[in-house]
Amino acid sequence: MPPLRIAIAGALGRMGRQMAVAIEADPRLALAARFHRPGAAGEGLVSRDEALAAADVVIDFTTPAASVALAEACAARGGPALVIGSTGFDDGELAAIAAAAKTIAIVRSGSYSLGLNVLVGLVEQAASALGPEDWDVEIFEAHHRSKVDAPSGTALMLGEAAAKGRGIDLGVVARRTRVGIIGPRPQGEIGFAVMRGGSIVGEHSVGFCAEGEVVTLSHSAGDRIMFACGAIAAALWVAGRPPGQYDMRDVLGFNAS
Amino acid sequence: MPPLRIAIAGALGRMGRQMAVAIEADPRLALAARFHRPGAAGEGLVSRDEALAAADVVIDFTTPAASVALAEACAARGGPALVIGSTGFDDGELAAIAAAAKTIAIVRSGSYSLGLNVLVGLVEQAASALGPEDWDVEIFEAHHRSKVDAPSGTALMLGEAAAKGRGIDLGVVARRTRVGIIGPRPQGEIGFAVMRGGSIVGEHSVGFCAEGEVVTLSHSAGDRIMFACGAIAAALWVAGRPPGQYDMRDVLGFNAS
Amino acid sequence: MPPLRIAIAGALGRMGRQMAVAIEADPRLALAARFHRPGAAGEGLVSRDEALAAADVVIDFTTPAASVALAEACAARGGPALVIGSTGFDDGELAAIAAAAKTIAIVRSGSYSLGLNVLVGLVEQAASALGPEDWDVEIFEAHHRSKVDAPSGTALMLGEAAAKGRGIDLGVVARRTRVGIIGPRPQGEIGFAVMRGGSIVGEHSVGFCAEGEVVTLSHSAGDRIMFACGAIAAALWVAGRPPGQYDMRDVLGFNAS
Amino acid sequence: MPPLRIAIAGALGRMGRQMAVAIEADPRLALAARFHRPGAAGEGLVSRDEALAAADVVIDFTTPAASVALAEACAARGGPALVIGSTGFDDGELAAIAAAAKTIAIVRSGSYSLGLNVLVGLVEQAASALGPEDWDVEIFEAHHRSKVDAPSGTALMLGEAAAKGRGIDLGVVARRTRVGIIGPRPQGEIGFAVMRGGSIVGEHSVGFCAEGEVVTLSHSAGDRIMFACGAIAAALWVAGRPPGQYDMRDVLGFNAS
Repeated sequence: MPPLRIAIAGALGRMGRQMAVAIEADPRLALAARFHRPGAAGEGLVSRDEALAAADVVIDFTTPAASVALAEACAARGGPALVIGSTGFDDGELAAIAAAAKTIAIVRSGSYSLGLNVLVGLVEQAASALGPEDWDVEIFEAHHRSKVDAPSGTALMLGEAAAKGRGIDLGVVARRTRVGIIGPRPQGEIGFAVMRGGSIVGEHSVGFCAEGEVVTLSHSAGDRIMFACGAIAAALWVAGRPPGQYDMRDVLGFNAS
Repeated sequence: MPPLRIAIAGALGRMGRQMAVAIEADPRLALAARFHRPGAAGEGLVSRDEALAAADVVIDFTTPAASVALAEACAARGGPALVIGSTGFDDGELAAIAAAAKTIAIVRSGSYSLGLNVLVGLVEQAASALGPEDWDVEIFEAHHRSKVDAPSGTALMLGEAAAKGRGIDLGVVARRTRVGIIGPRPQGEIGFAVMRGGSIVGEHSVGFCAEGEVVTLSHSAGDRIMFACGAIAAALWVAGRPPGQYDMRDVLGFNAS
Repeated sequence: MPPLRIAIAGALGRMGRQMAVAIEADPRLALAARFHRPGAAGEGLVSRDEALAAADVVIDFTTPAASVALAEACAARGGPALVIGSTGFDDGELAAIAAAAKTIAIVRSGSYSLGLNVLVGLVEQAASALGPEDWDVEIFEAHHRSKVDAPSGTALMLGEAAAKGRGIDLGVVARRTRVGIIGPRPQGEIGFAVMRGGSIVGEHSVGFCAEGEVVTLSHSAGDRIMFACGAIAAALWVAGRPPGQYDMRDVLGFNAS
Repeated sequence: MPPLRIAIAGALGRMGRQMAVAIEADPRLALAARFHRPGAAGEGLVSRDEALAAADVVIDFTTPAASVALAEACAARGGPALVIGSTGFDDGELAAIAAAAKTIAIVRSGSYSLGLNVLVGLVEQAASALGPEDWDVEIFEAHHRSKVDAPSGTALMLGEAAAKGRGIDLGVVARRTRVGIIGPRPQGEIGFAVMRGGSIVGEHSVGFCAEGEVVTLSHSAGDRIMFACGAIAAALWVAGRPPGQYDMRDVLGFNAS
């Protein structure tokens, strides 16, 4: 089988450069083209149209606006497939991506860490199997001292997965702080605990605590190369798929029924 | 709904007494009868026949021989259903249980900890989703200083689950010790690490380790009440089921497809 | 060496009964007498005066008022030595204990867990060696769902130890909650994170987080027998000491300079 | 106070380049000179003699032979002070370093991680306070899949610290593997457990396990910048010290009595 031909959008960005290194190290892939926004200067860059013509899949960690334009260009040509890692889309942008996905196959995810996406699926299942009458769900996360928000978006995503597994709304049961005389823990609550310090890349754990036992599902991030590995897995999976919008859970087979 | 009527076999044993306490505390259940081997003296004990007549489900933590006799007695009467927590059955005894399960519903499991049984299912899935090319599986367990075998049976069960998720044989890939100059870790290996000390009831964790990230699925046992809770869950599930042999994975819905 | 003769005050209480079991299992000790408040009926109980006459050390887990009366009675007789595990003393009661400690040796501590007391000493030292310019201190605790206050008293004690190691006031630097857009972590802050669930007896950890590394000092409580073991260690240490008031840190040699 | 003037030996090596970045980012320091072995070509390099004349302290991560020659050159000049991070010295080389330390101040350590060096001190103390009759010591370490030896040198160093705290010889009590029917844990044993997988930089933990409680002291390495930070701390400490050979434990104040 010939290697899958990948084009990198946003090739001069931090993730774009990381992707190039990861792709060149992977024998299943060929780095077919690198492009950046029009006018950007960099060795080996080609135009977007040249890149699209040369690739089976485009990997795109840019901005919502650039990703929408790229998706529309790919759809207009009838390909290639897209792996989108940009974040912060508004509703109009999401609709444009969805429209493009009627013509081409698109994977879009807020996190390309394989491990975290697997964890989300496991948490949903565990929350369903371990019901709220007996099992208390508690989510812990730790990040570096520069992180400005709490709890982390990933912690909230894990909380959503637990709530979904129980058929409830996270907003109703989330407990984000415990200070002072708070009384016994209400049944069904999903608690969050936050640690900040040093240069911790990201630790997340979901504890299911019952009488006499605790099940803990956790993820520890060491460096950001895993996001590149996840995007590569998505590219290998999406190549040749029918049109549609997919996420990492599809790539991993967790959304199959 | 009237409470489910439970009879306890081996009522004078450690688990039998624990079960009585747990059942009396549970409003979904009624402690209908307690019995022990013929000739045993204890307050409130009845004969086995009286117990079977009074119960919807019998919970049995005794010995393989006693469990077989009980299963045959229940089958001969056409009920009640059985939850068996005895361990160490030989092939003949297992065949006798299977024969009884043609007439009555029987749950039999080596561990009634709900959490551990959930963990086994999650480990199998994670091992399937996180393949051996990128993800190294490592199993860690810690137990009290009096435990005489290593790794624990539960650690081996978790290793079997991981191997099953990957369609391989644990015997081929298990690595039970690492000492000295051992060279790089072979791909596909499933490693075991063992700690012994103090009065630790039982800690198990399964790590999936890749470039830049680690997913860890773990279980911590605090005390043995959880086995009673698990047996109760099995009793509530098995009441009214069609004849057949089930395990805790069925009770938890992990064996459904 | 003949075994040390121990009397148990509050012998009918939960800790009193636990102490009796632990003392009888220890060949270094003899259970010389058990007493309870005047008028209490129980097998083998003697009067307080008989108990004091028979013992080298009294172990006392009762109430502040009973402990004060006992300390004064021991002081009036010139012995035996006392190990006090009652909690919740007011200032007047503390003054009475201190007065008795001019005549007899008294160990008094809010926690007789050897491990936790060792941890307090290690945390103070680590906080001193790992300064606030580079190292962020974060304290995590988890307890069962019925605990009504947060953070736990022990978590606060660990925070006090860290603050003392840095010569600062915990009240000034404690951060008890993090929710929403909170900005980067201020240098010198000591953060608390709280988990509640199941029947967790008590987990405490103190993390020191710097660029590229984390040191974590933690304690996990499995059951309450450790408090009895700690009180026994205190009794063995205090026998024959000169008059004075000591705590578990003295018993462990951490207060030596 | 003017910044401390630092020269970097082995400036073209991996740690040499890392040191330069760290020093330039630290306002307490000035990067006074960078040198490499004679004949090496690199921008901004000076000769060793020029470097020694310009510096208060030299930081040296090279080879044993180069470090010995450097120490002798510094001693012959009467300064500057030295921070040596090279490893693998033989007895003759160690003697030569010791001889140079009669004239100049030298810090030499196998690990400049501040956190790990603090941990070593805490482990020794904890092992002394928590004696072998009641407390079982267990050491766990996890590293990336390419590490060829087990247990890690750092795990052994932690084991040595625990043994030293108890006044025993690690060789006599170390237990490096547990497989099969091993019987109860002997009192006094120090156990090692090893995990290998993914890209884990280095995890170490020392557990002290007793009846009902566990104290765990652990270190987690995220990236190698911490070694540079540790060497900087050593440089700031050693400047102006009297001649002598010191290690990181001196820098941290743990060897003071």
